[in-house]
Amino acid sequence: MSIGEFELIQRFFNRPPLRFDIVEGIGDDCALLRPQSGKCLAMTMDTLVEGVHFLRGTNPESLGHKSLAVNLSDLAAMGATPTWVTLALTVPESDENWLAAFANGFRALADYYGVELVGGDTTRGPLSITVQAMGVVDEVGALRRSGARWGDGIYLTGDLGLAGLGLEILLGKTARQSPEALAKLERPHPRVNAGMSLAGFANSCIDVSDGLAADLCHILNASGVGATLDWIALPLPSVVRQHIEADGDAWMPLRAGDDYELCFTVSREREDELPGRMAEFGCSCVRIGSIEQQMGLRLKKDGAIYDLAALGYRHFS
Amino acid sequence: MSIGEFELIQRFFNRPPLRFDIVEGIGDDCALLRPQSGKCLAMTMDTLVEGVHFLRGTNPESLGHKSLAVNLSDLAAMGATPTWVTLALTVPESDENWLAAFANGFRALADYYGVELVGGDTTRGPLSITVQAMGVVDEVGALRRSGARWGDGIYLTGDLGLAGLGLEILLGKTARQSPEALAKLERPHPRVNAGMSLAGFANSCIDVSDGLAADLCHILNASGVGATLDWIALPLPSVVRQHIEADGDAWMPLRAGDDYELCFTVSREREDELPGRMAEFGCSCVRIGSIEQQMGLRLKKDGAIYDLAALGYRHFS
Repeated sequence: MSIGEFELIQRFFNRPPLRFDIVEGIGDDCALLRPQSGKCLAMTMDTLVEGVHFLRGTNPESLGHKSLAVNLSDLAAMGATPTWVTLALTVPESDENWLAAFANGFRALADYYGVELVGGDTTRGPLSITVQAMGVVDEVGALRRSGARWGDGIYLTGDLGLAGLGLEILLGKTARQSPEALAKLERPHPRVNAGMSLAGFANSCIDVSDGLAADLCHILNASGVGATLDWIALPLPSVVRQHIEADGDAWMPLRAGDDYELCFTVSREREDELPGRMAEFGCSCVRIGSIEQQMGLRLKKDGAIYDLAALGYRHFS
Repeated sequence: MSIGEFELIQRFFNRPPLRFDIVEGIGDDCALLRPQSGKCLAMTMDTLVEGVHFLRGTNPESLGHKSLAVNLSDLAAMGATPTWVTLALTVPESDENWLAAFANGFRALADYYGVELVGGDTTRGPLSITVQAMGVVDEVGALRRSGARWGDGIYLTGDLGLAGLGLEILLGKTARQSPEALAKLERPHPRVNAGMSLAGFANSCIDVSDGLAADLCHILNASGVGATLDWIALPLPSVVRQHIEADGDAWMPLRAGDDYELCFTVSREREDELPGRMAEFGCSCVRIGSIEQQMGLRLKKDGAIYDLAALGYRHFS
């Protein structure tokens, strides 16, 4: 069953805005928004393409959730409080059930964080979703990649490797079963509250979307420092440990993307305050290594030191 | 020749920001921007998909220009001054020549208006371009679709129908030759300065992207009014007149999209001021009809009245 573009927007995405800072939401040539005075506007944009970022036939509700989640995760990595989002949705046909499910997944996460969809575009074409998320943050408190300092502790929220395992399951590369791994891959939960509480506290931060090794390298390169990670400290869930022991690919959790945890660094003298800050949101967080003067990314494992700089996943590579 | 995603961004799109209101541009999890205090932020997002919005093999420099132009046109229709843009570029492969040409077209237009690219995403997939453009405008002066009032004059900048003719030429539907029609289709010039000068002056405004009839109907519906257009007043270039006289499809200029002119309405008592305002930017502008109490969109032509409400082009229709 096919419906028109305008009706589609109206039916699934339009509603009276809930936020006071929206003068005009969906429905005119532009959205009109009142930015918070004295604050910085943080802005990020991510695209998910069928066959590249997700498999054909992916549950549309999960896709609605994930397309917003990956963007909120970038705001979290900056320490920003999310406010507004826009959505460019390209679909091969206007399938009402698919659209309703997608909108549900998207809106449920948006509502959870009080983020409002203020505009976008719907077009016909190969399935692809681009979301821009915006938020506010104090200019001085914003978490940059470039702020890591020699001696900082390196921390990671949540756990590592579940999304990577989930992808291997989806691709049929392993016979292992793990609903939690699939859930982590398809419905990652962005660390929005953790990110907000780290603003003005952590020295640097990034979200783990391309794999811990690759993403941490962005911090190291931007900051002009190096690091050594401690294998024993990595928060690998038991199903991930079992999988890499059976499979032999120990580097998977460091290389695999899509975990959407925050990796951040904290000055030695402030590390004591961290557990209290994170516990407030029920967000677990462990120290996985430390920032060093010597450039490069190393891993300490079973008494040996491995060079990890080359493990990052890249598009077009 | 293939290059990596990060190198691609670095090579073609990254440079030190020129605007003072950019704290952090491309290169971190988010861009960080300083919004102008006391002003509204206007925001719009448009996607161009290969095979839907442009033909396969379209000149990449034109595509770079157009993908930004259609968004600046939406800002113009709101009366906003453009400030920042983001770009989500999905390309099937990283062809250096294609990317360099695309970036040239995009940046030339951005530089013309002092707009800065502050972020985005590059991904692999079917060719598709999503741009979000942002700008500033006074809340009270912003041009809404809903502000048209009974008695307003209806105006159109520039000319009408060239882009529609250009599309017919590209599709091989006519043997007529017209470089100006192709140029209008492929490299539309957004009416940014005209839009800015109309802020706080026009009662309503929209840009003509889906066809004059369809777009004017958005104003009429949002404002709860009707209108009659005067055929003789429509600014049809001679090549368009010749084409529709030979071809017989008189409605083409009203139905065809992609002209990216501004259609706006002005209170009767302020109409005298208009020519002076528009002449300042060398922007031609003609009165094509008037707003009436009776709902619906009508056209006066050769002594007859035609109902135009049903002529709009729609996706998924």
